[in-house]
Amino acid sequence: MSSERENGRALCSSPINRNPYGHGNTVSDFLSNVSRFKIIESTLREGEQFANAFFDTQKKIEIARALDEFGVDYIELTNPCASDQSRLDCEAICKLRLKAKILTHIRCHMDDARIAVATGVDGVDVMIGTSSLMRQHSHGKDIEYIKKTAIEVINFVKSHGIEVRFSTEDSFRSDLVDLLSIYSAVDQVGVHRVGVADTIGCASPRQVYELIRVLRGVVSCDIETHFHDDAGCAIANAYCALEAGATHIDTSVLGIGERNGITPLGGPDGADGRHASRINIPFNNYITGLCAFTHKAGIHAKAILNDPSTYEIINPTDFGMARYVHFASRLTGWNAIRSRAQQLNISMTEKQYKECTAKIKALADIRPIAMDDADSIIRTYYRNIQSGEDNPLMDLNADEIVPFAAKKKEPREVPSA
Amino acid sequence: MSSERENGRALCSSPINRNPYGHGNTVSDFLSNVSRFKIIESTLREGEQFANAFFDTQKKIEIARALDEFGVDYIELTNPCASDQSRLDCEAICKLRLKAKILTHIRCHMDDARIAVATGVDGVDVMIGTSSLMRQHSHGKDIEYIKKTAIEVINFVKSHGIEVRFSTEDSFRSDLVDLLSIYSAVDQVGVHRVGVADTIGCASPRQVYELIRVLRGVVSCDIETHFHDDAGCAIANAYCALEAGATHIDTSVLGIGERNGITPLGGPDGADGRHASRINIPFNNYITGLCAFTHKAGIHAKAILNDPSTYEIINPTDFGMARYVHFASRLTGWNAIRSRAQQLNISMTEKQYKECTAKIKALADIRPIAMDDADSIIRTYYRNIQSGEDNPLMDLNADEIVPFAAKKKEPREVPSA
Repeated sequence: MSSERENGRALCSSPINRNPYGHGNTVSDFLSNVSRFKIIESTLREGEQFANAFFDTQKKIEIARALDEFGVDYIELTNPCASDQSRLDCEAICKLRLKAKILTHIRCHMDDARIAVATGVDGVDVMIGTSSLMRQHSHGKDIEYIKKTAIEVINFVKSHGIEVRFSTEDSFRSDLVDLLSIYSAVDQVGVHRVGVADTIGCASPRQVYELIRVLRGVVSCDIETHFHDDAGCAIANAYCALEAGATHIDTSVLGIGERNGITPLGGPDGADGRHASRINIPFNNYITGLCAFTHKAGIHAKAILNDPSTYEIINPTDFGMARYVHFASRLTGWNAIRSRAQQLNISMTEKQYKECTAKIKALADIRPIAMDDADSIIRTYYRNIQSGEDNPLMDLNADEIVPFAAKKKEPREVPSA
Repeated sequence: MSSERENGRALCSSPINRNPYGHGNTVSDFLSNVSRFKIIESTLREGEQFANAFFDTQKKIEIARALDEFGVDYIELTNPCASDQSRLDCEAICKLRLKAKILTHIRCHMDDARIAVATGVDGVDVMIGTSSLMRQHSHGKDIEYIKKTAIEVINFVKSHGIEVRFSTEDSFRSDLVDLLSIYSAVDQVGVHRVGVADTIGCASPRQVYELIRVLRGVVSCDIETHFHDDAGCAIANAYCALEAGATHIDTSVLGIGERNGITPLGGPDGADGRHASRINIPFNNYITGLCAFTHKAGIHAKAILNDPSTYEIINPTDFGMARYVHFASRLTGWNAIRSRAQQLNISMTEKQYKECTAKIKALADIRPIAMDDADSIIRTYYRNIQSGEDNPLMDLNADEIVPFAAKKKEPREVPSA
């Protein structure tokens, strides 16, 4: 974190700032785990369920090593019962002896559990659907059967001296009394974690907060959460779950998973998983997206040049990214053009920067312009001043000459919120 | 909404389902505007601030007409002071006489206001930064100056008989007492809407809920909200703002805007704005993304084939999209293969479907397979049964023959949560 950013933060939390909801809040929330949680990285389980994903053994090992190096706490793998190769890959990854603990994800059934514990994993993630829809259309079992089977599987996995998690599926459409009854029962037999899963992506942030807060009072074990992104709330829901006391968050690289996926890991672009899934990084991806640190409107650029904290909550250099102040558009302002001119070792008066900016905006009103176009205008404008000549600022085509000449005014910078 | 979906919903809200947080909740929340809010569509203002965006007059008109047809309540345009063409385009769009009201977005300054009201817009959105960072690095004004200028600009715009909104910028890093004092002052002079803007994308859903809920008790006018997506919470924050009583939400097509943008409009893919911005729809986009309705893991496919409500909260056909059950992977299950065989007019016994599924999974363990590969295996397997022959199910290359032959086991379906 750069010192300029720290100064920005300090400014925010000064006694003059009386914002109880904002940054610099000094009241501790003892329930919140926002700054102390563990990541269960599921690119090699949930991510394999992404439509385009095909991970062969070598690719899985590459991804596991990259996630381990990144520092995730757990790596979750596809059910070894899914296919012959899935089991062999699970065994191979366990043999890598990574720092991260290796988990596999199975149905709540003794057949799956027996195969899972034989692979060498550090823990088993058990799950079963509990909503009436899932019970009717997925496995057809009732709550008492679920509870009984869960306890049998948990005791079996624990008897092998490894971790066990029990998760309901479709938790947010399940009956609350059913959920608490099952979670309480598995907590009492010593499950290491219970899992809450928004399998269909229907939960809202405040629903998540309320359910996890209630659950936090019911079980003494850790609480893992898993959020699908169908309604665009997977990140926010994970954050609210941590605020309410969840201890573990499931992620995948770029969020890949069933349908449009889950809470993304963030940070590095996870090139291995991305290439193996044949997808592009979304233009608007957090941190690593095309324009995540590009500032365009005039007043944004002005403030960013004064202090990046004005329009950035994350320092791009912390993630190997670079800030970019866009100066080649009709929305640009003279502060951005002055900054660019100074990068080009050109110094002018304020009046000259403003006039030069007006020329750039006039061209940008006619057609999209590139950095090179703006640089060319700045350089020619400056040479004209130095030489007293009046060379054309740009090579314009026949369609552009008349409208460009017609533009005489000097517009002001554009605002934005 | 299809009847099968309604049946699914009805099942969820039956008296047996005692989930106070989930769907089918019958307790009304009188504060919430989640099912009654207005959209201020800002593709032609915030969206123009997206790094890649260049909208000429014709493209702006196309986008405005498409948004109007979609049914947005307001269309917000770039400040007419930004450039000569920005003003001319604003005037041209006002002359279209669309059903949507036309707004323009200006700085809190009389110079901007005079130009804005002359364009023919139905309303003016006024904004100014109020956080200490913005006041220091953007405009250098104090709170009393902001309040005085805001009232002057609001009275001026109202005197022209059009709507006026006053928004703070960087609201979530502003002093709460400052904010409430300014909002209360502008409410008392009859502003139509106040705006709350998370300009830098730092707000969390529960912060949003708390601030809007407090503000709802302070002002009597409408409340507009604007959320940037730097931390991935723009959709969730808009939802929580509506829950707390906000009345208006700012959006743009695909969420384009400064940096990585704002709350997306959703619905149609907004091809006009997308092409003019030279971007691809993100693979994981809500509703219109590549795989938003693709189901891959065996138990997902099984339940989806029984009842789509099990793993879908939105009916794809409501948006002109199609559901797709992926059946050509190692994670597939026999229910998906049976469904596919039936589409191919092939009927077999359960045992035969399961054996055929095992063959497909075995091939998918060796390499990525296409729909055609899976179909070919299903058809050849079926022909072999009919003819009593033992033709090879697939044309395998030299590297594939040995591992494929080695796979004899019949794995079970893969679970998922």
